[in-house]
Amino acid sequence: MNKVGIAAFGLVKFSLEDKPVESLLLHSVKSLFENCPNLTKKDIDGVLVSTNHNSKYLSPILSEISGIEPKIAHSVENLCNSGSNAIVSAYSYVASGLAESVLVSGAERYDSPGKILEWDKSRGEYSHPIYWASIFTKSYKQKYAVKDEDLALVSFKNHRQSRENPNALQSEDYTIEDILNSKKVTEELRLLECSRSCTGGAAILISSEKKIRELTDCPIWITGIGQKTTSAGFTKNTLFSSMESSTIAARNALTMANCQPKELDVIELHDAFSVCEPMALESIGLASEGKGMTIVKEGISSNNFKINPRGGLIGAGHPLGATGIAQTIEIMQQLQHNADSRQVDSPKKGLIHNMAAASTSSTVLVLEN
Amino acid sequence: MNKVGIAAFGLVKFSLEDKPVESLLLHSVKSLFENCPNLTKKDIDGVLVSTNHNSKYLSPILSEISGIEPKIAHSVENLCNSGSNAIVSAYSYVASGLAESVLVSGAERYDSPGKILEWDKSRGEYSHPIYWASIFTKSYKQKYAVKDEDLALVSFKNHRQSRENPNALQSEDYTIEDILNSKKVTEELRLLECSRSCTGGAAILISSEKKIRELTDCPIWITGIGQKTTSAGFTKNTLFSSMESSTIAARNALTMANCQPKELDVIELHDAFSVCEPMALESIGLASEGKGMTIVKEGISSNNFKINPRGGLIGAGHPLGATGIAQTIEIMQQLQHNADSRQVDSPKKGLIHNMAAASTSSTVLVLEN
Repeated sequence: MNKVGIAAFGLVKFSLEDKPVESLLLHSVKSLFENCPNLTKKDIDGVLVSTNHNSKYLSPILSEISGIEPKIAHSVENLCNSGSNAIVSAYSYVASGLAESVLVSGAERYDSPGKILEWDKSRGEYSHPIYWASIFTKSYKQKYAVKDEDLALVSFKNHRQSRENPNALQSEDYTIEDILNSKKVTEELRLLECSRSCTGGAAILISSEKKIRELTDCPIWITGIGQKTTSAGFTKNTLFSSMESSTIAARNALTMANCQPKELDVIELHDAFSVCEPMALESIGLASEGKGMTIVKEGISSNNFKINPRGGLIGAGHPLGATGIAQTIEIMQQLQHNADSRQVDSPKKGLIHNMAAASTSSTVLVLEN
Repeated sequence: MNKVGIAAFGLVKFSLEDKPVESLLLHSVKSLFENCPNLTKKDIDGVLVSTNHNSKYLSPILSEISGIEPKIAHSVENLCNSGSNAIVSAYSYVASGLAESVLVSGAERYDSPGKILEWDKSRGEYSHPIYWASIFTKSYKQKYAVKDEDLALVSFKNHRQSRENPNALQSEDYTIEDILNSKKVTEELRLLECSRSCTGGAAILISSEKKIRELTDCPIWITGIGQKTTSAGFTKNTLFSSMESSTIAARNALTMANCQPKELDVIELHDAFSVCEPMALESIGLASEGKGMTIVKEGISSNNFKINPRGGLIGAGHPLGATGIAQTIEIMQQLQHNADSRQVDSPKKGLIHNMAAASTSSTVLVLEN
């Protein structure tokens, strides 16, 4: 298969602002062009929009207002996992030879219709993701004798790390006590253990090797891709203490990249709620079942930024359609040694884990420099 | 590039029924499995949903209710051109090696939010597609001295042909007089010259050569792909009497397939309104500028079903997200010599033309047996 990688990126600061989705998309693309002086509009063969917004025809709209006339142009939607799906779709357009460069722009507003799971009728009135997260939290704590004080460490670490991310929604520092004393939103979960839907945008350019060599001196290659959908409704998942789709996606991505979990130097994972971080670390194979918190604690004691360097979804905010793209940009910047005060030591291989709706579907990417 | 083709199809009759989009998607997949006895659920690596419906996470929902656990799963949206974009996306997943087989299911309800172009603020209150179609009709008639009686022939032919399509919305036969005397909806257009948004579903399986050989004795190959987006708002298109994106997409698809327009034996094209048929024939290169009606008239006098054999959008109905897939299924069936009373003589090469929003974006596919 031909080498495919990332040539450029753009970001729009995460916020709670009331901006039109078209404006967020446009500004992510403007930022990408500013970051890549050699790029011209004629280089772009495809424009994919990743969002949960209800507006139609957003890819041609973004193309027109950006002055791009692409071949390929459409929207991609898969709830919180939209951005990672759009990146894999862009990869396939380039790897198949249908395109040399595909621009992926993700954007969301704080009031995204993807925030609630109205489609899962089995949930009754419990349509907010916090209800599956509460069941996951309760199961995980019971099965592995994990305490509230342990899980609060995820939020503590990710908020602390997000202070070094200029693009993050918030830059507040919270103590473990602040987190444990924050408002209880369900019996199991406190407000500061939840990511927040927000406004934001992120864009990335996926290109062939030939095109990447023209555009950047620091190419980053996509060497592993794994995806899995096990269901849509989360009650089909009989184990609430592990994430099957993430385990399968991670295994396939690591196999494709010929990479062992221990070789990974930096990881972005989908911590929509605090319990998701240890569960994702176990799915990736970095810890055995029930031992994910060991890695979180190591990260805190060594302050090494290895896991969720930009602050994760809890620290950075969660603009649904932009999240998978922003996660990928963070690993790109890390591998380019361009992550400022978030930089980990000499990373060679990084992984992105994204998922949707109680891990009923997952996407995992491996990047290398 | 590896050969990629179509292994199976499924259809849900076009109607004005009030059915949930999930049901339409499911029944298109059920029909596909019934048509392909060798296919198992484990064969399917990807499930793409093509629709303008606002519901989220429809691909995992369809996967769960169909009993499929795919790797790749997301929705694709590009207004009327969604289905063709989803087919090209599926092609790229297979051609890149990320998948062996990708199921594309398109469905729409009669009340689709894609029916009006609310996103184009420059239209003011004229958000219904009939307004661009009226401008196209007026320009085309003036520039090429074409009469209302000429354009009515498109509707006459396509309604007549749709009577042989058991999947069509309507099976009424109309005389030229019926069409010319039907209700005037704008100064330029009559009701029977317009396609009708309707309820319907269509599914198709895109597979690698190896997988296709296991599944069918009548493989159909996708040999040409062309796509172009010139803008989103149609007023950027300064020529209202030709369709630039369609011309570019057709040229690229025919070049990729190493095929001349005159070699095409059967064609499905996007006749959302009567004037679109001669304009599309000119874009494809089958007639010179302003001469598209010659081909329509030839089709009527010889009753050869070459252009829009299933009755086009005007005759068969237009369930937005399903249309591009249903068009492709028709050409597939023609090339398999399996189109019953719609069959053209010994076809070898067929073309599908689909577009959205006043031809601001177009997709053209060439298929061969």
